Amino acid sequence: MSDKNRKIVLASPISGIPRADNFRTVETDIPVPGEGQILVRHVYLSLDPYQRPAIAGAHVTSNKALEEEEVPSAETIGQVVSSNNPDFVVGDYVRHMGGWQEYSVADSNQVFRVDPDQAPLSTYLGILGMPGLTAYASMIKLADVQAGQSVLVSSASGPVGSMVGQIAVRKGATAYGVAGSDEKCSFVVDDLGFADCINYKAADYPGSLAERIPNGVDIYHDAVGGQMLIDALGVLKNYGTVVMCGLISQYNESEKGRGFNLAPAIIKRAVMKGLIVFDFEDKRQEFFDLAAPWVREGKIKYREDRAIGIENTGAHFERLMSGQNFGKALVVLGDH
Amino acid sequence: MSDKNRKIVLASPISGIPRADNFRTVETDIPVPGEGQILVRHVYLSLDPYQRPAIAGAHVTSNKALEEEEVPSAETIGQVVSSNNPDFVVGDYVRHMGGWQEYSVADSNQVFRVDPDQAPLSTYLGILGMPGLTAYASMIKLADVQAGQSVLVSSASGPVGSMVGQIAVRKGATAYGVAGSDEKCSFVVDDLGFADCINYKAADYPGSLAERIPNGVDIYHDAVGGQMLIDALGVLKNYGTVVMCGLISQYNESEKGRGFNLAPAIIKRAVMKGLIVFDFEDKRQEFFDLAAPWVREGKIKYREDRAIGIENTGAHFERLMSGQNFGKALVVLGDH
Repeated sequence: MSDKNRKIVLASPISGIPRADNFRTVETDIPVPGEGQILVRHVYLSLDPYQRPAIAGAHVTSNKALEEEEVPSAETIGQVVSSNNPDFVVGDYVRHMGGWQEYSVADSNQVFRVDPDQAPLSTYLGILGMPGLTAYASMIKLADVQAGQSVLVSSASGPVGSMVGQIAVRKGATAYGVAGSDEKCSFVVDDLGFADCINYKAADYPGSLAERIPNGVDIYHDAVGGQMLIDALGVLKNYGTVVMCGLISQYNESEKGRGFNLAPAIIKRAVMKGLIVFDFEDKRQEFFDLAAPWVREGKIKYREDRAIGIENTGAHFERLMSGQNFGKALVVLGDH
Repeated sequence: MSDKNRKIVLASPISGIPRADNFRTVETDIPVPGEGQILVRHVYLSLDPYQRPAIAGAHVTSNKALEEEEVPSAETIGQVVSSNNPDFVVGDYVRHMGGWQEYSVADSNQVFRVDPDQAPLSTYLGILGMPGLTAYASMIKLADVQAGQSVLVSSASGPVGSMVGQIAVRKGATAYGVAGSDEKCSFVVDDLGFADCINYKAADYPGSLAERIPNGVDIYHDAVGGQMLIDALGVLKNYGTVVMCGLISQYNESEKGRGFNLAPAIIKRAVMKGLIVFDFEDKRQEFFDLAAPWVREGKIKYREDRAIGIENTGAHFERLMSGQNFGKALVVLGDH
């Protein structure tokens, strides 16, 4: 165990897509837990698109922009290395908002135990964590997907999209994906079991959407917003449902968007529902009990995009926010 | 009775806001009804914003652009002057899609009898017609407004908006309007009974929305789209409902719109529903039976923006589509 805590701080204001040099690594002493607190050594650090607007103070989790020298917030999986709380013992694995750093102290009521025997530890940040819960809330709670329906999924190779489609398929629906490369699309179809996947960077997009989904879809899961939402509305069936849960297209604020016309939503009599995953925290166990066996039995596939070492967090975030990642973005910080 | 039928035809392609000289008056013989048909002399011709995208072939009622020399489609109130059908006698008043002209022949299954003793004939095109039914579908069927709730209404002095707010008020809700002049806002508050009305052309808009509706609204009725929708989402309460039923801001296609970000719809967990009034045709009688007594008893107020004579239809449409009208746009074509 090192005797220092390395953490990432904001080095300069972010404009557009974040760059690695918007962040800087600083070294401090390992913090000391106070009364009732625990000290956690982080094993995995989660990088997620919502962290971009959160850093800018424009997200439901944060309405205050991060200042220079402050540490971005993020979910972590870690191991308790020191405990002043009877509910946790040294060696316990936990999930909490540890931030972009190697160690953190936490109050016990903000920390949740995770079990490496139930599922691989990293999946608690991805397919079985917040992204998985988002997919569950979308398909089961808001869209109420039924056997025989069809679902279009944006960002289909990512942790949310891959789980949206796989839940839909397991419920007897047909899943169509949209992703940003032929390689991602092959994964979506061959490994995840989607019926088809459309590459939105191909020359024939968006015409390819209507060509390859001629009968339309009952449900569209939207993590992108903007023009992607408008394009997807084009293949929504009348009276279809749109779950709006992300705005990747607009998180890098410099992009202003083209003209935006919701005419298709009206014409289709769409029902569009905003989703905030935190509303479904009380369904986390229900979701986990459903999906963890699928993961253990290999019925659900997933892919991770890993970086090693806290000093690479900024570059990995740049990779994520410029769409170069392929799978759930994680930073590996230590052994387990 | 004249022996000629004057009609308005498209004279040139429309770009942006329609101009009077995009249309031309032509004179033809009065058409002769065939077997089973009736000949109708039009008394009132309805002008509605949806006719702009319909002429362009970009509306749910029409996916084919009007060609030059063709007559725009419109709902009319008229009187049967000749009948080859046992269901209609000369003198009957009827509502049908008669178009921008003084006479039309119609098949009996596309014509609906109206009763001047039940309500003023012109109201069958406005507050008790398609615009009124739209308001009814919005408040009663899609948003299910409840006593104690609050509702924000765009285009509040128009036929749809004025009825949306008055239905909400009659159901025990509080109505807030948005309109384009202080004069319109005075009408909305003083005559229609809205709690407040915000002038969207005033210098303090859109900040005035949040200032004057500090507690937010449960429901937003949107006939405008674009930036107005985004502004209104700013005062929507969490889990609020948006009824999307029009896109006046985007009907004059030259306007491309600013950046459009649905983040508030997600953050608020909004449920947004597309409304097409034609889905509610089977509720027309139910609506009429509810609202016609209100009109007769003076409990529901309305305002009309009338032009006289078929030759003024194009100019009146320009007036409507440039937002200069105040009340339901009608052309008076004859006596009744």
